[in-house]
Amino acid sequence: MKKYENISFCDVDLKDGFWLKRYLLNKNVSLESVKNRFEETARFDALRFNYLKNGRKPHFFYDSDVAKWIEAVAYIMEKDRDSMRENEKFIDSLIDCMANAQRDDGYLNSTVQQICPDKIFKDRGNHELYCAGHLIEAAVAYDKVTGKHKFLDVMEKYCDCIYRAFISEKTADFITPGHEEIELALLKLYRYTGKKKYFEMARFFLENRGKHDEQYVYDGNRYGTQDDTDIYHLKEAVGHSVRALYLYSGVADLCAETGDPKLLSALTSVFDDIVNGKMYITGGVGSTFRTESFTVPYDLPNNTAYSESCCAIAFILFALRMRKIDFNAKYGHLIERVMYNSLLSSTDLSGKAFFYENPLEIALEEYGREIAVPESRKERLPITQRLEVFGCSCCPPNINRFFAELGDVIAFSDGDTLFIDQYVSSAVNSPLGRAEIVENYALDGKAQISSQNYVGKKLAVRLPEWSEKLVATSDGKPVKFEVKEGYAYFETGKSFSLQLDFGIKASFVAANPKVRADAGRIALTYGPVVYCLEGVDNGARLNRISVSADSAANAELVKDFHGLYSITTDGFIDKDNSALYFPVSESVKEPKRLKFIPYFAFANRGESDMLVWVRKA
Amino acid sequence: MKKYENISFCDVDLKDGFWLKRYLLNKNVSLESVKNRFEETARFDALRFNYLKNGRKPHFFYDSDVAKWIEAVAYIMEKDRDSMRENEKFIDSLIDCMANAQRDDGYLNSTVQQICPDKIFKDRGNHELYCAGHLIEAAVAYDKVTGKHKFLDVMEKYCDCIYRAFISEKTADFITPGHEEIELALLKLYRYTGKKKYFEMARFFLENRGKHDEQYVYDGNRYGTQDDTDIYHLKEAVGHSVRALYLYSGVADLCAETGDPKLLSALTSVFDDIVNGKMYITGGVGSTFRTESFTVPYDLPNNTAYSESCCAIAFILFALRMRKIDFNAKYGHLIERVMYNSLLSSTDLSGKAFFYENPLEIALEEYGREIAVPESRKERLPITQRLEVFGCSCCPPNINRFFAELGDVIAFSDGDTLFIDQYVSSAVNSPLGRAEIVENYALDGKAQISSQNYVGKKLAVRLPEWSEKLVATSDGKPVKFEVKEGYAYFETGKSFSLQLDFGIKASFVAANPKVRADAGRIALTYGPVVYCLEGVDNGARLNRISVSADSAANAELVKDFHGLYSITTDGFIDKDNSALYFPVSESVKEPKRLKFIPYFAFANRGESDMLVWVRKA
Repeated sequence: MKKYENISFCDVDLKDGFWLKRYLLNKNVSLESVKNRFEETARFDALRFNYLKNGRKPHFFYDSDVAKWIEAVAYIMEKDRDSMRENEKFIDSLIDCMANAQRDDGYLNSTVQQICPDKIFKDRGNHELYCAGHLIEAAVAYDKVTGKHKFLDVMEKYCDCIYRAFISEKTADFITPGHEEIELALLKLYRYTGKKKYFEMARFFLENRGKHDEQYVYDGNRYGTQDDTDIYHLKEAVGHSVRALYLYSGVADLCAETGDPKLLSALTSVFDDIVNGKMYITGGVGSTFRTESFTVPYDLPNNTAYSESCCAIAFILFALRMRKIDFNAKYGHLIERVMYNSLLSSTDLSGKAFFYENPLEIALEEYGREIAVPESRKERLPITQRLEVFGCSCCPPNINRFFAELGDVIAFSDGDTLFIDQYVSSAVNSPLGRAEIVENYALDGKAQISSQNYVGKKLAVRLPEWSEKLVATSDGKPVKFEVKEGYAYFETGKSFSLQLDFGIKASFVAANPKVRADAGRIALTYGPVVYCLEGVDNGARLNRISVSADSAANAELVKDFHGLYSITTDGFIDKDNSALYFPVSESVKEPKRLKFIPYFAFANRGESDMLVWVRKA
Repeated sequence: MKKYENISFCDVDLKDGFWLKRYLLNKNVSLESVKNRFEETARFDALRFNYLKNGRKPHFFYDSDVAKWIEAVAYIMEKDRDSMRENEKFIDSLIDCMANAQRDDGYLNSTVQQICPDKIFKDRGNHELYCAGHLIEAAVAYDKVTGKHKFLDVMEKYCDCIYRAFISEKTADFITPGHEEIELALLKLYRYTGKKKYFEMARFFLENRGKHDEQYVYDGNRYGTQDDTDIYHLKEAVGHSVRALYLYSGVADLCAETGDPKLLSALTSVFDDIVNGKMYITGGVGSTFRTESFTVPYDLPNNTAYSESCCAIAFILFALRMRKIDFNAKYGHLIERVMYNSLLSSTDLSGKAFFYENPLEIALEEYGREIAVPESRKERLPITQRLEVFGCSCCPPNINRFFAELGDVIAFSDGDTLFIDQYVSSAVNSPLGRAEIVENYALDGKAQISSQNYVGKKLAVRLPEWSEKLVATSDGKPVKFEVKEGYAYFETGKSFSLQLDFGIKASFVAANPKVRADAGRIALTYGPVVYCLEGVDNGARLNRISVSADSAANAELVKDFHGLYSITTDGFIDKDNSALYFPVSESVKEPKRLKFIPYFAFANRGESDMLVWVRKA
């Protein structure tokens, strides 16, 4: 099995552009916003182990919340350690608390130790190994950037404890964790330390999964926590979608280590199952809030879409790992789709507030419909405005750490070829030389890629799914390229400068006819960006609106929305009628100019109806 | 306030035709099916008061289930006592049990007496007065047809007990019942016995409603049980829809007695609120299963429609009462709509099984979507096949008693005019003479109305909502008529024979653009009958199908479905595509011949997708 070298963010410098803005928003605003909310909600206190003193009860996932935030800070430190000096001190002090609180046997979990010390590794649902996984990831990142080993030492000691409890002494009451995450963390730790033991531990948790049915039936159901099958027989994406994607990411890491073709085949089957039937057009996944899970192919309700922000991140993590072991443009396509849509929608334009769920429709009338139903029993619908913190606030720090490692997704290399997967303005310091990407991709569909010191022979650029034709030039002259497996290959010399024009335009997309929720509907896209209608621009009850696919040809782009294009097109609105039912002949639709905005920017101007899939006129 | 004389079923003989078939199906099959299931499920045993002997625990609504069945038998006895001799004995024996079990103070409730005798009138949610109401209705009907007074005596003794507990001594722990029904029952008892006390009791329960807020907050909500407003200020239909419609029926009865214009105005406001925004095209009401309630105008989801069978009946009961105090064709329109659609759909074609909910869409894929969700937490959707009995089996005996009193809806008289509201083959023995109706209305849109001994001066026939033009003839010659307020008025002599042709045809109907669930969709109707697509005829995933409104012009009617028309039209089906999302230009719809069947007949050929509102091509 062949592997492809990912150019990590360590070797990438973001340059001015769409994504640097978001990187900086995360660094300068979101990170601090999450920190403040976590302080207010006693999440840091949890790891200060001062519950007895302040009485603010920690929750089973608090350690993981803090860990993700630390990991985010560590990644930012890699690029700009000075800006994080205060956070570094803050983290050092948390690490001291953790080290002090760690039990002699190495065990470390703020909730179990402070709330229910008799429950160590007794309850599979207690998120202990999930928290451990995130702490390990944070420790590796922090160790790497600071050279200070205390955190990693603590975590290695904890890993020894875990090893004894689950592998050598088997004192734990369960075999695999209820919420996956430690698997990919242990493989990361293995790669960082070189210690084979961590690889063994990861393999243990991965290979035991789906093999102990009787223990892991969740209310009559083995799918919820991916206990339905072992990793070598994975075929479909099932169960809690974040857990599933963390599992698949861990399996992909294992596959990268072992090169087992059976695992690769299982993983591609799962990946294809998602992108061919279980993914929203925004790249979001998870079609039901009930156990936050994958459902069946083509089941993609828009108003009750779960599409958790953590899923957007986890799906990118999975795709990125797949790209390293399976050369295919589909992974880059997916990452682009998620990044510009379900990932970006997770954060408001100010950077302070976040969505947990990212629905594709908001019909405010639905929120007030059940007037005679007690609050506690009303239909559950996604919230309509982003919040700064949640009771279960897994997404905000996950968003922090994703943006902090954003540069990971851009480039790969293989032999004499540098692959550009994502068009993000940056300098990529690859083994084949330094390449510069200058782009305004989401606005003009173009990118310039150049190098002065290239030692490779070819440059391959991913052809976006939405692009009908690539026009490549150099100094204004057409350049030839060969299209192979979704990439355009260019022969290069030591220095080159290529102008790529992917022919961006507004166009409407249809969904598979089996998708009931999207039947007879179309979605406006502009390159990688999915657009939506909002009530604030188009009036309430957006399902009265219809649009012809042809209208895209006359779409007008206006850069009026935070430097982004809004798109106006001709559409229609059904004329009001006083009757509840009437002959179709009395049904009238009137012309209406429609204003679309990027989906990711919805819900930034107060509560409003929103609709991605608009009725086709 | 003027009143209109309803020709009761006592004075109507059904004749061979569509509705007699259904009347006989109820009499010969449904009644027995319900009886058998009720025996099996210990419902009759409840009223035999032998829980201690057989250990089969009665439920709070068992008395009402049995009462409705007895009432049905009594109505059938009015027409054919001989056929019910066995049931009469059966009922007499039940009455003996009730008389024996009745407490000295008159109290009678099989559940409270046997399960929790300390709870008499302690808990508003225990359905005691609801059960009493249905028993009173049954007792009146049984007394009237048999002349045997034991049952009525028992109930009058119980009424004395209720009077003391709620009015004179006020020992009850609540003021008005949680589930309305006793109000209209007491008014029926008042009319039957002439005893003013029952009128006072009814008025007490009606006029105290909505006046005791603090007591009647249901989980933070006063709407659920119509405790939000008093009856003189009713404006909108709210809360549990069956309870609401029973309440409105009781209020209409009160209004008929008092002639209070404020009540009439409140009632018309409520009626209009329903038919203008809260009613499915089938006449079904109740848009959410959560507290089985009305929601807000235009909120009419199809796949999760509650549209309880009891609501269909209760809505007819309400409309019929309104028609007696408010001359308006809309009440007849509503009754027709309900009868041919949401009422008929409640029963399968064999007469044995019943729907509790009557959805307007079944998408089987939705039922299996949440594979990773434990059974207990899956999304709740209506059942897809009728059942012979339910845990809460209020609908089947309600259906029994409605069909048994079916003839009530046909005609009214006022002064010198006989009004024909419903076209049902029958002989109507009105104060103005005997009129015969011969029709095949649902198949040909025609009816013949004749009389040989008419002493009135005019005949008025309701012009159906769906009819664009009435052609009236006598002996093949055109007859003149005057159209006024939705009725066609004919001058008559002592004998007449009118042929009415309402111009039935297949045509598509649209819904108000505010109805989100029906946006861009149309429903096929044929006269009073709403049609639907079923998967068994058209393949699964019916939302792939679209149809042009024009196609109705070329619709082909085939009498191939239990003597009913199926309607075939030209339509389209979206062509399958392997991609999940693709440019609209790749979207292809192919011609497909569509087969529609009457909505009420859906789910008679096994589990199948079903769709009323089809995408407009």
